[in-house]
Amino acid sequence: MSELRQGKRTILFPNRPVISGWASVVGKKEGEGPLGREFDQVEQDSRFGCASWEQAETKFQKSALNLALKRADLTKQELDAVFSGDLLNQCAASNFAMRGVQVPVLGLYGACSTMAEALLLAGCAVNAGYGGSCAAVSSSHFAAAERQYRFPLAYGGQRTPTAQWTVTGAGATVIRSKGSGPAMIGATLGTVQDKGITDANNMGAAMAWAAYDTIRAHFSESGLGPEDYDLIVTGDLGKLGKELVTEFFSRDGVKLTERYEDCGVLIFDPSTQDVHCGGSGAGCSAAVLAAHLLPGLEHKRWKRLLFCGTGALLSPTTVQQKQSIPAVCHAVALEA
Amino acid sequence: MSELRQGKRTILFPNRPVISGWASVVGKKEGEGPLGREFDQVEQDSRFGCASWEQAETKFQKSALNLALKRADLTKQELDAVFSGDLLNQCAASNFAMRGVQVPVLGLYGACSTMAEALLLAGCAVNAGYGGSCAAVSSSHFAAAERQYRFPLAYGGQRTPTAQWTVTGAGATVIRSKGSGPAMIGATLGTVQDKGITDANNMGAAMAWAAYDTIRAHFSESGLGPEDYDLIVTGDLGKLGKELVTEFFSRDGVKLTERYEDCGVLIFDPSTQDVHCGGSGAGCSAAVLAAHLLPGLEHKRWKRLLFCGTGALLSPTTVQQKQSIPAVCHAVALEA
Repeated sequence: MSELRQGKRTILFPNRPVISGWASVVGKKEGEGPLGREFDQVEQDSRFGCASWEQAETKFQKSALNLALKRADLTKQELDAVFSGDLLNQCAASNFAMRGVQVPVLGLYGACSTMAEALLLAGCAVNAGYGGSCAAVSSSHFAAAERQYRFPLAYGGQRTPTAQWTVTGAGATVIRSKGSGPAMIGATLGTVQDKGITDANNMGAAMAWAAYDTIRAHFSESGLGPEDYDLIVTGDLGKLGKELVTEFFSRDGVKLTERYEDCGVLIFDPSTQDVHCGGSGAGCSAAVLAAHLLPGLEHKRWKRLLFCGTGALLSPTTVQQKQSIPAVCHAVALEA
Repeated sequence: MSELRQGKRTILFPNRPVISGWASVVGKKEGEGPLGREFDQVEQDSRFGCASWEQAETKFQKSALNLALKRADLTKQELDAVFSGDLLNQCAASNFAMRGVQVPVLGLYGACSTMAEALLLAGCAVNAGYGGSCAAVSSSHFAAAERQYRFPLAYGGQRTPTAQWTVTGAGATVIRSKGSGPAMIGATLGTVQDKGITDANNMGAAMAWAAYDTIRAHFSESGLGPEDYDLIVTGDLGKLGKELVTEFFSRDGVKLTERYEDCGVLIFDPSTQDVHCGGSGAGCSAAVLAAHLLPGLEHKRWKRLLFCGTGALLSPTTVQQKQSIPAVCHAVALEA
């Protein structure tokens, strides 16, 4: 296979940090979806035994990190740093998950691209030798997100056809300088793109251009093309956003179709789960990465994979102020 | 002077990334404070000519970054990455500031510690050779923060004696692999500390232990003591938090007094500005760093300085849910 090259937005990990542990913990609806049997834990109670959805989201993160550490055969105290973030205001799920844990925490906000951002920064840290073991964690919670971004669930609001369903769950990965597991070979960083989409119920469209922009930059800078990847996965554009990305590349004469998937499309079954355009939320790509993509690399189902986290950088305030929706996409290249 | 040593939470920058540009742009009240003449720009209009305070905060960030780039004699397009974050929900000020700028963006959330977090991650990136030029930016806005965290200003709510005043303004720094300017020699990463403080109007107390914990870890791991620094600056604990940190160290037999300052104390004059315990907000330490600390290093007023960004990781939701307030502190060691 061709080798990756460095570029303006593309960084290399010549020391090949290894993802030696991963885990996903999700909610009931996610457990009923097509990937149901691949998640490490499916929790039936949306409150996860806690007093609030927000505290439950913290527990989803903690549980995923604990399981990922177990798989990596590490204790929390052996971690050099945790890179984490989520969608709650002030990233509360992540910060509360690390309360009292005596491990350095670097808080991130990249909306639904947070897992890719965390993974690439953890990869940077391990590749450069700042630490031998780092973790990347992200989460979301359907009920907490609906209340914060749209309406309380009890209002019974109607959802538009282009809406996506926020995943309840968390994904965690443990990145180490040595050991076995899928390797991180490089990453292409995202810029903030805004094509003027103002419909907060159509985030797939808002994010599609950012995904196209980063993947295109990855191809042109790295010297690798779609044919060098067994799988290119965006997360989480949903059905419409995925179609748009396919269309953008098709106009360039690049066919992605067979090797292109989206975490928001993979996680739910639209014919039985009434999720409209698919899944979303920072927990979506995090859980799909840990449940489906990393095991696929481990079992050599794919040899090389490009994991492209996409995030819509809106807030309820910016929507009320009639601002359009900026978006970002960070891509991480992984090898079996 | 003694050399810095690596440790569990302490990383070294042997390649000594240089802060070659910096700038601060603040509001009217900050301009009337003790550091008034040191800021690069004082904006009299709290809306900065924009339709909302939130958009004004974006403009504060953009203006600070543009001025910092000018001082570093760089264009925006020459940056390899921007590390930025703020206090608005979904870090909207930062993300909107980078809209349409074709430069990689890594979004952070560390509450009022964001500037220190951004600085240390940019230092890591430049020291490791991932990029030759990175920027670190952060901001806050009094009116936007009051509306989001407490009450709309028009309610005329009373402030408690331990409250701090959110700074309106932004600070930006440009970190490069070569050139002139203060050097980054290392950093000690923060863990999430929570001593059970539940009063959201007493964030200085909530953050004081985190500051103590990180500075103590820095001393014990790096081999440097208070006597190796000409100045140790927390930002922004305010008057009460600063007293608590002084007290915690005093119990250990360590006297910080003469060489210890706090950005929240430095930025306002309590005798004339009615700010209760002092300044706060992610823009506070960012603006004080750019206006006061970096020029002081440049002019050899101090030879070595420890910049300790402190953040209270609460959200209005966690406060309503009766959760205590976690806090974090990241420390960056700088040399003239």
